[in-house]
Amino acid sequence: MLLTGEDIGALEKRYRGRFINAVTGVKSASLIGTKSKGGDENLALFSSVVHIGAHPPLIGFVMRPVHVERHTYKNIVSTGHYTINGVTDRMHERAHQTSAKYPAGTSEFEACGIEKVYLEKFSAPFCAESAVKIGCVLEDDIAIPANNTRLIVGRIVLLSVPGQYVHADGYVDLAAASVAAITGLDGYHSLNPVKRYSHAEPEKKLKQTFP
Amino acid sequence: MLLTGEDIGALEKRYRGRFINAVTGVKSASLIGTKSKGGDENLALFSSVVHIGAHPPLIGFVMRPVHVERHTYKNIVSTGHYTINGVTDRMHERAHQTSAKYPAGTSEFEACGIEKVYLEKFSAPFCAESAVKIGCVLEDDIAIPANNTRLIVGRIVLLSVPGQYVHADGYVDLAAASVAAITGLDGYHSLNPVKRYSHAEPEKKLKQTFP
Repeated sequence: MLLTGEDIGALEKRYRGRFINAVTGVKSASLIGTKSKGGDENLALFSSVVHIGAHPPLIGFVMRPVHVERHTYKNIVSTGHYTINGVTDRMHERAHQTSAKYPAGTSEFEACGIEKVYLEKFSAPFCAESAVKIGCVLEDDIAIPANNTRLIVGRIVLLSVPGQYVHADGYVDLAAASVAAITGLDGYHSLNPVKRYSHAEPEKKLKQTFP
Repeated sequence: MLLTGEDIGALEKRYRGRFINAVTGVKSASLIGTKSKGGDENLALFSSVVHIGAHPPLIGFVMRPVHVERHTYKNIVSTGHYTINGVTDRMHERAHQTSAKYPAGTSEFEACGIEKVYLEKFSAPFCAESAVKIGCVLEDDIAIPANNTRLIVGRIVLLSVPGQYVHADGYVDLAAASVAAITGLDGYHSLNPVKRYSHAEPEKKLKQTFP
């Protein structure tokens, strides 16, 4: 299939949504946990989490237009704190269920059967089952003019990863940790074991360094 | 392992880079193709491609700080055109090699053995082997204050996907298309077959819709 921008604009709305959400490639499956100023807990699935930088440690994700009420956005902006939790193969069905439109005041932790946990004195709730648990403070809330979405950038202030999945050089083996991938709007995959390569240099053949 | 922001800041630089690049979860493996105003072709690997919107069809990726010369950025800003090409399992070793620092004027297509193709009258080169080929025009070039990276947002004006991988409802089966995933800085994975779920609604049990 070869489509122009005009062809894409003419597609049926839901077909286009599934199609365009798939072509960007494999995506992370992350649950974002927040707590409102009034104490209501919220958990929502995002497939747009992206690495922004390591020093300082920064993570971004894309928030859809906020002219309608979005509990995750409201809680992040009002409290400055949120958690990003990696979805595993055993969690993805329950994680997908958090994308249902529950009323404000309903905790998706309870409605979807995902156990919460609080770590240290961080004010937002984490997912107990997630291998990777990240506590963020809001750093930048950036408008994307092209379609009124927003890039939310957070700085990692708390990070929990089981040591058994961390290689000696800092790499985290997400396949061994059963971390799930998303494709499109509703497709979930487990990962086959990793192949790692050496740092690339011109005129030098890459080595496979793992496994 | 439980680390605070201070603990992360104290990690050895390369360890920290590998570690923080891994914790955001599974990432897309994309080759971005450009051509300079002088006609030099460039191809570079990115793991930060992210869905921004379907209508209009928008894709973003994160560009590292541009105080040093970045051929991809220079070409995108000067021509307004670039391609995003999905890396497959058979390509990822050669795709990783494009991350070596080749001098300006060296085409990574040739240096890394990746065949190029031009589609319609689009001015930037595509990767012939990529199942998903996307032609973009630059829409927004947005500064991220937290660390001087940039979010580059493009609108899809040309899109090629083999029809055999497109489900009747618009979903694209990237696992069947052998599209690769990245973890961390240098880890590559193939995907296990997809499981798809129905649209989530409160008080309604999810159905598995595929396979």
